[in-house]
Amino acid sequence: MNGLLTDLYELTMAAGYFECGKAKEKATFEFTIRRLPAHRNYVVAAGIAQAVDYLLNLSFNDEEIAYLRALPHFAQVSPAFFDYLRDLRFTGDLFAVPEGTLLFAGEPALTIRAPIIEAQIPETYLLSAVTFQTLIASKAARCATAAAGRPVVEFGTRRAHTPEAGTLGARAAFLGGCAGTSNTLAGFRYGIPVMGTAAHSWVMSFPCEMDAFRKLQRVLGPATVHLLDTYDTLEGARRAAKLGGPMWGVRLDSGDFDALSRQVRGILDEAGHTGAKIMASGNLDEYRIRDLVAGGAPIDSFGVGTELATSADAPHMGTIYKMVELEICGIKRFTAKYSEDKTSFPGAKQVFRDVARDVVARSGECGKGEALLRPVILGGKLVEPLPTLAQSRDRAAQAIANLPPALRQLEVAEPWPVIHSRELRELIGQTHSNLRG
Amino acid sequence: MNGLLTDLYELTMAAGYFECGKAKEKATFEFTIRRLPAHRNYVVAAGIAQAVDYLLNLSFNDEEIAYLRALPHFAQVSPAFFDYLRDLRFTGDLFAVPEGTLLFAGEPALTIRAPIIEAQIPETYLLSAVTFQTLIASKAARCATAAAGRPVVEFGTRRAHTPEAGTLGARAAFLGGCAGTSNTLAGFRYGIPVMGTAAHSWVMSFPCEMDAFRKLQRVLGPATVHLLDTYDTLEGARRAAKLGGPMWGVRLDSGDFDALSRQVRGILDEAGHTGAKIMASGNLDEYRIRDLVAGGAPIDSFGVGTELATSADAPHMGTIYKMVELEICGIKRFTAKYSEDKTSFPGAKQVFRDVARDVVARSGECGKGEALLRPVILGGKLVEPLPTLAQSRDRAAQAIANLPPALRQLEVAEPWPVIHSRELRELIGQTHSNLRG
Repeated sequence: MNGLLTDLYELTMAAGYFECGKAKEKATFEFTIRRLPAHRNYVVAAGIAQAVDYLLNLSFNDEEIAYLRALPHFAQVSPAFFDYLRDLRFTGDLFAVPEGTLLFAGEPALTIRAPIIEAQIPETYLLSAVTFQTLIASKAARCATAAAGRPVVEFGTRRAHTPEAGTLGARAAFLGGCAGTSNTLAGFRYGIPVMGTAAHSWVMSFPCEMDAFRKLQRVLGPATVHLLDTYDTLEGARRAAKLGGPMWGVRLDSGDFDALSRQVRGILDEAGHTGAKIMASGNLDEYRIRDLVAGGAPIDSFGVGTELATSADAPHMGTIYKMVELEICGIKRFTAKYSEDKTSFPGAKQVFRDVARDVVARSGECGKGEALLRPVILGGKLVEPLPTLAQSRDRAAQAIANLPPALRQLEVAEPWPVIHSRELRELIGQTHSNLRG
Repeated sequence: MNGLLTDLYELTMAAGYFECGKAKEKATFEFTIRRLPAHRNYVVAAGIAQAVDYLLNLSFNDEEIAYLRALPHFAQVSPAFFDYLRDLRFTGDLFAVPEGTLLFAGEPALTIRAPIIEAQIPETYLLSAVTFQTLIASKAARCATAAAGRPVVEFGTRRAHTPEAGTLGARAAFLGGCAGTSNTLAGFRYGIPVMGTAAHSWVMSFPCEMDAFRKLQRVLGPATVHLLDTYDTLEGARRAAKLGGPMWGVRLDSGDFDALSRQVRGILDEAGHTGAKIMASGNLDEYRIRDLVAGGAPIDSFGVGTELATSADAPHMGTIYKMVELEICGIKRFTAKYSEDKTSFPGAKQVFRDVARDVVARSGECGKGEALLRPVILGGKLVEPLPTLAQSRDRAAQAIANLPPALRQLEVAEPWPVIHSRELRELIGQTHSNLRG
């Protein structure tokens, strides 16, 4: 049912592999972070749960197969290929880093080993699903770091690239360090705390702001957050102060947050509402949050939308999915790509995270430190339940806390050292000279 | 079933409207392009079909309602509200510009008139769905313009923000002027031409490149496109030339496209394959395409991935969804927002596109030129079948062809004039003084 969600060339290659008698050859593909996104010192791996779900459900139905058969590309392909597709399931292995693992340039996040057609078709889906959530989790980690303990709430579904991206982005943002999301479906599906009370339209739907505030309080009680800027922020603050509790607090959504938060804090305190909190939202990103925090603006919580939901300063990153090994009748061949600006390295790999560096090694090697890639699916079956989202979030938070301070900063720093093991270097050299002849 | 795909505050407001006895008040909301995205002279409206589909299917199931009831925000909300939600369907009206319409800053794309709760909940979904596809269609239009008649194929699902965004993005890219997509599901769902033959892994799966090329040709015949850069582009070109037909041609995927395309053209021509075509893909955007075309590079077709699928230079734009009217017991009240940097204008509107300018008028006014907003859903029912994707694509192409030349360029030019009618200006003034009064 999800088999068509791939680039056509994966399917024409599948037909080719089948017609050339290669369907039983076992291929190993690696999903690698070739380059970190712009402005990033690390990324937070996310989206693996969706990758697993995809693999466990990979299939084609009759209608989809009929569509393919009618395409001109498949005019010369034998009917047996379409029977093969009808029965296709993922029967291979997936090794992956746990979600919440920090990764650096040059490191693999997933390894797939399966009959070549089963390993080829997932390329498009895996690249999109894992790259996107990894981008969002990484951006969220930066926002949370900048907020220095104040909660950051993900508000960006309306700006996400489709509502579904908003929902999966909310998941990734929580994993990366956000305290919650405004996306109700993300709360329902993934158990993420959901937050939100009222928009400008609430205020606009009443003849006067005071009436709107009073009615909101009656419905939401202590969850009430008065949105102050429909007409005039300070006027709104005075009205909220006059009403008093119960309320969580107020929200600023435009203007100079540093100045306004101090003025609003003053208005609330003067009226005795020292427990009422101030949230700021609107055009925020990690840099603005950092500056507000550094300046001592009395803001208790930040809502981040557009910049987070689209990873606006780095809306894409250089991830690749490349064949690294091929086993034909039990004989293993190592594969790589040597074109000018897009090299890939041969052989299945493991990453060992040691105290002060990472070593990318061949998969069979023993190394020092934590081995990041772990078996997730073996022979088409899930090895054990995946970590919960809360566990993945903790893993990310702990890893970020353990980073050298310079890498936790928002500015790009000297990269975390990632080196190749001697065995891997030898394999690269050998494969290169074999292929270049 | 899609009711939870919204921000929580839409649902807390819904509860508030219900508890305050406002559920029967009829609200009019407008979806407006507040600002054009960066670097754009116009946008191509897209995603309306998905917006319509959402509205026609808006509902909540029991499990979703149980989830909401258990949230602390709804602790004080009466059970009658949840009965209301269980029966909720969209019974209102939607006016929208046809997909493929060009829009400029300050223009509404959609108007929703419905009982306030039905009009409030769709905000999040509509903003995300329509904004995203509009961004992608607009970027595609720029790429197609730059290619000056050469086909541009959308290759970006792997870089899209989720696989679903890749599929909807492929739809929008076709609407905006692409000739096709690599996304097979987009072909299946939307009838878009699909394209693609082989990746580097195809070449890598054979002991030598010549063998890989020969086998591909055997399977794909005249649809064959040899990917040249797995090891060395010119070496690859010589092998393809040696093999000869049948083939569509070859694909360059890295390196200096201008130089390589000339060298590869020479190799193919010298071997007598003057009909074999050259496609280029990899790190392309509208600017690089324009430069290659201007320089006379012999490239027949362009594949655009990352930059198109993420609208990378403008991954978001300032669209808003604001209440403009509210009818209480038959009495109409006009609403607007007057905060510093985020003003909205009162009253339902119409846009008249005349020969040399657009006039934004009140919805009841008569104006010169084409009225862009048309009834799509009335009383919860689709008025007539939506235009086909091909019709929307034609509409966009024709509108772009009719633009003043400066606005068709890639650089930002003097904006297309968008003015307010006298009646609208009067309403804005009155509403402002009423609210400030």
